[in-house]
Amino acid sequence: MAKDLKGITVTKEGDFSDWFTQIIQKAELIDYSPVSGCYILRPAAYSIWEKVQQFFDALIKQDGVQNAYFPLFIPESLLTKEKEHVEGFAPEVAWVETGGQSKLTERLAVRPTSETIINDSYAKWIRSHRDLPLRLNQWCNVVRWEFKHCTPFLRSREFLWQEGHTAFATQGEAMQEVHKILDFYEKVFVELYAVPVMKGRKSEKEKFAGADITTSVETFLPNGKAIQGATSHQLGQNFAKAFGITFKDENQESQYVWQNSWGISTRSIGVMIMMHSDDKGLVLPPRIAATQVVVVPILIGDKAEAVMKKAKEIQKSLPNSYLDDREGYTPGWKFNEWEVKGIPLRIEIGPKDLEKKQVMIVRRDTGEKKAVPFASVDSEVASLLETIQSDLYTKAEKFMKESIIEVTNLEKAAAVIKEEKMFFAPWCGSPESEEKLKEQTGAKSLNAPFEQPSVSGKRCFMGCGEAKQWFYFGKSY
Amino acid sequence: MAKDLKGITVTKEGDFSDWFTQIIQKAELIDYSPVSGCYILRPAAYSIWEKVQQFFDALIKQDGVQNAYFPLFIPESLLTKEKEHVEGFAPEVAWVETGGQSKLTERLAVRPTSETIINDSYAKWIRSHRDLPLRLNQWCNVVRWEFKHCTPFLRSREFLWQEGHTAFATQGEAMQEVHKILDFYEKVFVELYAVPVMKGRKSEKEKFAGADITTSVETFLPNGKAIQGATSHQLGQNFAKAFGITFKDENQESQYVWQNSWGISTRSIGVMIMMHSDDKGLVLPPRIAATQVVVVPILIGDKAEAVMKKAKEIQKSLPNSYLDDREGYTPGWKFNEWEVKGIPLRIEIGPKDLEKKQVMIVRRDTGEKKAVPFASVDSEVASLLETIQSDLYTKAEKFMKESIIEVTNLEKAAAVIKEEKMFFAPWCGSPESEEKLKEQTGAKSLNAPFEQPSVSGKRCFMGCGEAKQWFYFGKSY
Repeated sequence: MAKDLKGITVTKEGDFSDWFTQIIQKAELIDYSPVSGCYILRPAAYSIWEKVQQFFDALIKQDGVQNAYFPLFIPESLLTKEKEHVEGFAPEVAWVETGGQSKLTERLAVRPTSETIINDSYAKWIRSHRDLPLRLNQWCNVVRWEFKHCTPFLRSREFLWQEGHTAFATQGEAMQEVHKILDFYEKVFVELYAVPVMKGRKSEKEKFAGADITTSVETFLPNGKAIQGATSHQLGQNFAKAFGITFKDENQESQYVWQNSWGISTRSIGVMIMMHSDDKGLVLPPRIAATQVVVVPILIGDKAEAVMKKAKEIQKSLPNSYLDDREGYTPGWKFNEWEVKGIPLRIEIGPKDLEKKQVMIVRRDTGEKKAVPFASVDSEVASLLETIQSDLYTKAEKFMKESIIEVTNLEKAAAVIKEEKMFFAPWCGSPESEEKLKEQTGAKSLNAPFEQPSVSGKRCFMGCGEAKQWFYFGKSY
Repeated sequence: MAKDLKGITVTKEGDFSDWFTQIIQKAELIDYSPVSGCYILRPAAYSIWEKVQQFFDALIKQDGVQNAYFPLFIPESLLTKEKEHVEGFAPEVAWVETGGQSKLTERLAVRPTSETIINDSYAKWIRSHRDLPLRLNQWCNVVRWEFKHCTPFLRSREFLWQEGHTAFATQGEAMQEVHKILDFYEKVFVELYAVPVMKGRKSEKEKFAGADITTSVETFLPNGKAIQGATSHQLGQNFAKAFGITFKDENQESQYVWQNSWGISTRSIGVMIMMHSDDKGLVLPPRIAATQVVVVPILIGDKAEAVMKKAKEIQKSLPNSYLDDREGYTPGWKFNEWEVKGIPLRIEIGPKDLEKKQVMIVRRDTGEKKAVPFASVDSEVASLLETIQSDLYTKAEKFMKESIIEVTNLEKAAAVIKEEKMFFAPWCGSPESEEKLKEQTGAKSLNAPFEQPSVSGKRCFMGCGEAKQWFYFGKSY
């Protein structure tokens, strides 16, 4: 009975949405809160976020970025300073209007993103070319009061992220950073999450509110939907002009700075879960698993004490491992629980194993079972963890590649979308054609890869003249 | 001129409040934001918070606490569930009343602390004694919309902290954790911040809203004011009863859990700054300094290139060091800047030093200067950093001990407060006498040390009968 309660009762293929909801609750990643669209990150989920923080924080610090913290509240007058930016965010801002018993004289936005409040400071701090580049980042919570359907991790009203905000003397330096940060995001997805990405530039219609250029890493999920994983924007001089961020150059002439902003959020955890997990529950890539190995002793008969002793010994020799010595649960119940929770490797040891001086090691991703002599447990575990990490990536990459279909006309594009795949097509890039595509197929543009096949002589797949770039398209979260 | 702009223009003794304001701005720790009472933690301040996070996070994780994240917003109906708690916090809650264009049907509190939203989950998650203890922590921002005078770090409307929330089967286990966590806080102050503390239990009047017992670490600042550094509360069964948090014990009987909550905030950074800094600027204890050593080459004459080469070599061999090779600034200007910023050690190297195969090492805390042969720089730096850390603590401890005066009557107590010191007195502990003390002297109770001198036969210093405990008292932030 306990088994039924714990297990996932629908399949990934049969009902993806219910499957995901069950996974995140039964693996104890998420719980719902009394505030609609705001979710609780339980330790199993938060520990993943801590790994991402450590990994990405080290990358940006090595690259000279510093961490800081800016206030949660942004006065309405400040939020509205950059026209495109506020138009993009205003519909989903949560407003504080009362403090204690007093109505506030100006209402305060709960930050949906911090360009405005940070640039208010940059205008004070930046005076000379010697103050540049200025590259700050913060790890924080943000709120976007979405009225669309919320989904834990993917679209929630409050989420955690990092936001980098930087200022440069030249556009060239700014653009160089845009790409560098995007490469860091790719590393997070590929090296930690074992999730392949499409790296490229967003369309005019899909770019960030207030940016000149938005680049992104996108991925494609097993339910036929693409999803934006992280973004790196070149803001040009839009905020610099709105906030008056100028510096004296080497010739003592006043110039506007060139700026970027970039972010990755807890949404990325949801992407990873959807990509790898299966009908038995969560599957965690070893590099983001806080616990990589669980040791389950099988305590039957008169060898029980000796088995437990050996199990303890084995667990102690393995980093990031856990000994499940709870009484009152059967081994089978424990196996099932750790499968639901996605622990990469399970080690079983019972009286017969003890006799044979071996353990059974079971891979969570494939279910493969292997007898391993005591002497080789440490090295076998280390090598299996590496193998799982790389196999998960390879499998996901194969799936993504097979999901991209090249098309050159709308009819074919519509058919691909119906089959729950993505398409890659030569495109003119106009917001009007993107609008039309969305109406007719439900798909939108993802991004244009930086390394492009030639478009010379190609017509836009929407039939609106000459193609300017190859773009990825798909249904999207 | 640059020197004047950078330097602190008032003394710590002469105008403590202006001195502190100048320190935090000129050392680039804090800047003001457009929202009154909300401050920007610049990299120099945030890096201190990161050290505290690493240190304390490791302590609690080793002890079995797990990190999680709960929503920022708490519905009003939830916040009001525990009567004493809401009475304590309601006057200073910031309320979100609008999301996008829509008025919300129930207004949402921006968390002033998370007992209520976390215990709403605990009521769902805790079923059996096997689910206990449940020990979660989160690192987050909280908002208390204070209408009193705000001071950066010490009293701000938004601040960063960690909040631990735990549930146990028995009061004994809960109380054990209260003390353990308080010891961890003492470690943060003593070992990282080099700040001595008074550890003890708060009075009835001063305890946390909703707690049975509040314990704290308190310290005493050079301006004659005491300040609460961190608190560890035993909440008894107050929230358990308000939220219905019960478990089935081993006999299948339903019991209420016993709970704690505990927190340390960015206020602690302010305490450390006030304690150690001097008329020249910030003084950082080495263990919380991101940069511990700055190397300043003195580039005069034809030896410039050789000096720079050696300076680089020295800097590279020293962990957490920085080479100030900026052009266009004099060495004197640089010395001054790093003094204002509190870097523990400065290494100067000029042509004459090169000749003598030595550098000059200057301690920030004492100004002491020492010629050190090239070969011993690494070991000398390591040992000086240890010495500074311990000297700062010793100095602060001496100051604190000299500031505590034992008294047995109100008249003497009032005189001590006038002299800007604390007093230690036998007390009855009643809220009425505490009220009266505050009216007459401006002082309030800090805490009662766990190791008490005897009170047998002692009268309460307020003249209201028998003394129950010795308590520390002082003017307080």
